[in-house]
Amino acid sequence: MLCTKRIEVATEGHCDIIDITSQVAEGVAASGLKEGTVMVFVAGSTAAVTTMEYEPGLLEDLKETWKRLVPEGIPYKHDLRWGDGNGYAHIRASLLGPFLGVPLVDGRMALGMWQQIVLVDFDNRPRSRAVVVQVVGD
Amino acid sequence: MLCTKRIEVATEGHCDIIDITSQVAEGVAASGLKEGTVMVFVAGSTAAVTTMEYEPGLLEDLKETWKRLVPEGIPYKHDLRWGDGNGYAHIRASLLGPFLGVPLVDGRMALGMWQQIVLVDFDNRPRSRAVVVQVVGD
Amino acid sequence: MLCTKRIEVATEGHCDIIDITSQVAEGVAASGLKEGTVMVFVAGSTAAVTTMEYEPGLLEDLKETWKRLVPEGIPYKHDLRWGDGNGYAHIRASLLGPFLGVPLVDGRMALGMWQQIVLVDFDNRPRSRAVVVQVVGD
Repeated sequence: MLCTKRIEVATEGHCDIIDITSQVAEGVAASGLKEGTVMVFVAGSTAAVTTMEYEPGLLEDLKETWKRLVPEGIPYKHDLRWGDGNGYAHIRASLLGPFLGVPLVDGRMALGMWQQIVLVDFDNRPRSRAVVVQVVGD
Repeated sequence: MLCTKRIEVATEGHCDIIDITSQVAEGVAASGLKEGTVMVFVAGSTAAVTTMEYEPGLLEDLKETWKRLVPEGIPYKHDLRWGDGNGYAHIRASLLGPFLGVPLVDGRMALGMWQQIVLVDFDNRPRSRAVVVQVVGD
Repeated sequence: MLCTKRIEVATEGHCDIIDITSQVAEGVAASGLKEGTVMVFVAGSTAAVTTMEYEPGLLEDLKETWKRLVPEGIPYKHDLRWGDGNGYAHIRASLLGPFLGVPLVDGRMALGMWQQIVLVDFDNRPRSRAVVVQVVGD
């Protein structure tokens, strides 16, 4: 059995980190499945998905980390060629990745107590993001 | 067909890297499935899973890399708010990610010869980790 | 339903980044499935898969980023022990990861318009890589 649901997420860009756990959970509930794997994928090359404890301190820490590891203010060949100024966003998204899987056990996603599913939008402008939620199961 | 197995892994924390390949393989064998995808997920926001050649040199190299990229000794807003001192562990776990998939082909996981499945516990104390192993297949 | 296809990809190593989207799409087409999840896995501990906009500027930017984050010219314990000089390649591959999932919706992978599936070979010599493509679906 496979169920697919598409959700739209409005973001502010600029490393906006959005807790999408409840939207994913709604997609899972709509599937009627109780056992399976939940697959979360964001379309696009400047956004990514992962998990984290969604609290304000860590939101700032994660943004600081990306500024340090893949800075905005250094030259990117992508920007020289295309002029959109979001080379850093592309690189960050490739490193973090657009896909996440989470087990579905007894009708609940097997996340830790302080673990949420987040969409990270690295682009340099607000975007509307298509996130595909699939449940593969019995 | 879907089979789910939960395994518990005791860790020392502090970037403890544990080879869980044989425990995952036991879960796969117990499923009786020969073709499918093996899904590995660690619950919690300070641990992650990936693959690597599990040899002592690389274990040290990976620990050194994380110390360099996401150091312990710099200020994290998470630590200012909550005082648990493991902000770096949260950030590392979000970057590496809690999920891994491995193909199951002819009853064997299609890993490379020098490729093991590892659990990395970034937290700053020993932990018991719940790892969920699922096999989706025919 | 599950379909498995193995593809071989010749690489130059040295952070060679290869667009494998069309090869993955051929595997998906051969499965005959229209709805499901496409699972992509590279065997080996010095290669990885992710997505990116496949254009020459970003290829250079991604290579520069890896040189900066996990440099070749610093000492790795792996190299001291084994002498293959590819410690950096192992570390990069573990950080990026060997697995990717992409939803299959209405017979098409739900990638963004500028989002391709890439194999990144970090090793320090040309390699032939086994990539396993699986489709789990109805």
